[in-house]
Amino acid sequence: MPHSPAPRRVLGLDLGGTNIKTTVLEVADSDVTSARHLDGTTVATYATRGPGGVIDRLVEVAQEAIAATPAAAPPIAAVGLGIPGLFDHGSGVAQLLPNLPGDWDGQPIRGPIAAALGLPVTLINDARAFALAEGTLGAARGCPTVVCLTLGTGIGGGVLIDGEVRLGAFGTAGELGHQTADPDGARCGCGNRGCVEALAQASVLCAQAGRGSVEEVVAAADAGDERALAAIARAADAIGIAIANAYHVLGPDRVVLGGGIATAGDTILEPIREAVRRRATLVPRRGIDIVPAELGARAGAIGAGIAAAQALVRAR
Amino acid sequence: MPHSPAPRRVLGLDLGGTNIKTTVLEVADSDVTSARHLDGTTVATYATRGPGGVIDRLVEVAQEAIAATPAAAPPIAAVGLGIPGLFDHGSGVAQLLPNLPGDWDGQPIRGPIAAALGLPVTLINDARAFALAEGTLGAARGCPTVVCLTLGTGIGGGVLIDGEVRLGAFGTAGELGHQTADPDGARCGCGNRGCVEALAQASVLCAQAGRGSVEEVVAAADAGDERALAAIARAADAIGIAIANAYHVLGPDRVVLGGGIATAGDTILEPIREAVRRRATLVPRRGIDIVPAELGARAGAIGAGIAAAQALVRAR
Repeated sequence: MPHSPAPRRVLGLDLGGTNIKTTVLEVADSDVTSARHLDGTTVATYATRGPGGVIDRLVEVAQEAIAATPAAAPPIAAVGLGIPGLFDHGSGVAQLLPNLPGDWDGQPIRGPIAAALGLPVTLINDARAFALAEGTLGAARGCPTVVCLTLGTGIGGGVLIDGEVRLGAFGTAGELGHQTADPDGARCGCGNRGCVEALAQASVLCAQAGRGSVEEVVAAADAGDERALAAIARAADAIGIAIANAYHVLGPDRVVLGGGIATAGDTILEPIREAVRRRATLVPRRGIDIVPAELGARAGAIGAGIAAAQALVRAR
Repeated sequence: MPHSPAPRRVLGLDLGGTNIKTTVLEVADSDVTSARHLDGTTVATYATRGPGGVIDRLVEVAQEAIAATPAAAPPIAAVGLGIPGLFDHGSGVAQLLPNLPGDWDGQPIRGPIAAALGLPVTLINDARAFALAEGTLGAARGCPTVVCLTLGTGIGGGVLIDGEVRLGAFGTAGELGHQTADPDGARCGCGNRGCVEALAQASVLCAQAGRGSVEEVVAAADAGDERALAAIARAADAIGIAIANAYHVLGPDRVVLGGGIATAGDTILEPIREAVRRRATLVPRRGIDIVPAELGARAGAIGAGIAAAQALVRAR
């Protein structure tokens, strides 16, 4: 495998229900840890236009980024697309995109975008993209085993081992929010009972605290409101079970938390850490290393770009 | 790295509370999937002699196996030792061996055995050794991502990715039995509440069924005994949570079950599979692939031998 130092550019796209975020990364050859974010935008998804309209929109956004590359710079060589759900990795066809309107099950995604752009396109689940970004360039860079969770509307995640996102046999590796935290707990959108997501996602936390947003829950808890504190304790125990289980399955060097619940700060993070310490008893206390994400709202787009860069290296 | 076809021999030892099992493996150079079990014994541990006596016994057993190697055969080049607990991988010193009498915490294991034998010694947790054997030569050979559980006195396990046992940051990767299956459940020996082990290990299953052994529980369930069926259902749900969680964290291609509960057959395995199907809803039903172990009682010794062979390759 040749190792030329030539820089490449890749485009990362992060498809959300409201916005599409983009990033242009420059990567020195095969070393994705060298990736630098050069430029990015945030534009409306127009999700109500349905699958066909959203795919047209993604193509349009990518074409604009490609056209904006200066003539003297390396051209964009590949595109990575983070999508909020599950898809078939072999065919690039959507399976389950619960947060986008319209019937996405069976909708080809990779094929039509790659054909329109004339570039290789790599699909990645958006939480796996977040994990790839934080594990490569962010809060867990350099760690051999990394577990990341996104705590917000839904609870997703990703697992990195030696710098590679593990997808597992059916792309479900990293779905840490669908671990069972209470065997007879509330019904989850996935069909199981007592998933961590069903017990601790932002809407449940807010409803149990009787508040309109995570920020309001935190403000109330900081002011000593008992209902808010109890709601946080319940969510933190469920999230703590998800993380403690991951310590017993994989033994991460570091756990990175992103999303609205994680960015709310230590009012929520400390109860999560305490729950993990209480349950992951085989792990030395100094080994429990749970930190907030570093890359901010563009992490998903960055991770999608890194996935595209890794695919370029593999395709050689 | 040179690839000569020269066969090597390694010795695998599996230290249990009652017996030490041994295996002599022949491995064609660095390809551990070529390992063949040549010879093995099962001898008494004499665990009541305490740590020093057990270490002397392990040295004695190893020396006998080394002396028994025919003059024309390759000499034994390394020793792998599976131990029933946790140890520090850097120093080879025991941390937690709950099923051996005496004070093992802080007891050097690797050092004194290697010094007495004049050979490299590799330590591995016994359930991780079981997983390495089943993933390399047994029921999950050829699978990229493998999760193994030992269901018996205690519930252990191991995780293999691309043929390597993952130890995680503190050697706790694979401790699938210490996932929380019921947040307010029974106290576990590890200090947590509601661990899968605390809800579903053999002694709990037998007590809840009011029977003296797993075989008796199964016989009663097969005869329609409602208490036995209910006890199996409860244990199967806890074990099913451990496995379903592993599907959502890692996405194994195959799950291998060993130990007394697993060898009891479909009376217990089918309720486990059904619990996993119910909870791992993101995984296609055809993807839930849970099978009994293939290598029998010598799997731990074989896995320890494979770990020693892998260490020889790494040390080149």
